[in-house]
Amino acid sequence: MTESPDLAIAIDAQDRPGMLAALAQVIYEHGANVSYVGLVGRSGGMARVIFELESVGDQATLVAAIQAVDGVREVSTEPTFEKVFGRRIIVIGAGAQVSSVVSGAVSEADRHNIRGERISVDTIPLVGEKEIAEAVRATARLPRVEALVLAGSLMGGETTVAVREVRAAGILVVCLNMAGSVRTEADLVVTDPLQAGVMTVMAIASTAKLDISRIRGASF
Amino acid sequence: MTESPDLAIAIDAQDRPGMLAALAQVIYEHGANVSYVGLVGRSGGMARVIFELESVGDQATLVAAIQAVDGVREVSTEPTFEKVFGRRIIVIGAGAQVSSVVSGAVSEADRHNIRGERISVDTIPLVGEKEIAEAVRATARLPRVEALVLAGSLMGGETTVAVREVRAAGILVVCLNMAGSVRTEADLVVTDPLQAGVMTVMAIASTAKLDISRIRGASF
Repeated sequence: MTESPDLAIAIDAQDRPGMLAALAQVIYEHGANVSYVGLVGRSGGMARVIFELESVGDQATLVAAIQAVDGVREVSTEPTFEKVFGRRIIVIGAGAQVSSVVSGAVSEADRHNIRGERISVDTIPLVGEKEIAEAVRATARLPRVEALVLAGSLMGGETTVAVREVRAAGILVVCLNMAGSVRTEADLVVTDPLQAGVMTVMAIASTAKLDISRIRGASF
Repeated sequence: MTESPDLAIAIDAQDRPGMLAALAQVIYEHGANVSYVGLVGRSGGMARVIFELESVGDQATLVAAIQAVDGVREVSTEPTFEKVFGRRIIVIGAGAQVSSVVSGAVSEADRHNIRGERISVDTIPLVGEKEIAEAVRATARLPRVEALVLAGSLMGGETTVAVREVRAAGILVVCLNMAGSVRTEADLVVTDPLQAGVMTVMAIASTAKLDISRIRGASF
């Protein structure tokens, strides 16, 4: 979906309005492209700002320029989230079924990560059509998401509309064999939750042989 | 750790250097504070930029000002990640043990999310001291993380140093009862992986009674 960022930078700086605009301006002047910015650990008027950057030319010059921005205390370079946590699968649904899907997905991701990939499996147990539809929609706004597994017994209505949207955003959608219309919009329907987790990882892993284009629309 | 953001905005804009600086400047001029920026769905020279903002005064005026920035095509308001996915627990370690911890954590999070909380459980199976230490350290740079569970049979060295760092950043660290020095730095040591997942959720859930300050340093 997104290009792999080249460099992550952690900046300890004053926590005040305009700080991000000042930092973004310096980064722009050095020709780099920002792919992610997060604020963590705000306390005592200071904040840690995490930037992920692409097309960084001279790293040392950029770091020195950021260091010179008014209000910046410390700058360090870090591995990017892409490098550390890699591509993400999101599992949404009912507790018991989310647990089973994740169990399969984590076991399978382990086998690929051992061979050098980085695949994360992230989850949220939820109840309610509105709540689930909102979470499905939000996966398209999260960074590094490649696949979504819907793990429940009844999903339709707003959730089905949301599935159409996230598929249009390029996210693979797998769902359990359940009641409701969501099945009709998924890329794959898998009856066994453990198998659903395993197949989803295989579909996105570059060290696996499963070709989603050959089985799209199938039920297992 | 961080304040809850007030508003998330999705902006479809030209994918070019300087776009973020221009948007950050407009947001600054309207007195809002940026807590998160992510880039998703880049294609055909366009990108979708997600901003999460705090201290937004007049939302309609801000949205109109962003809409007027050169290169912006569409602006919409969305629920924040804090509202949708809430607080996060990260589970790192070996496949089999990560699976068990997540199973407990998801089942317990389900019980709290049903009562209106939002707790996510995110995982990555990994092997190797350097790889695990790097992932542990990176959790302190991720947004909305409140607890980390280390699920393995042997962790020490660099991982132990990393645990000290993330605890200093305010993250609760739970580990399984395993070989290596990591146990000595954790907030809690729990032998059963399912119990480790359940207890970690209870420790951060506001609808649970477990008070971590009363059991910090204990082994179960």
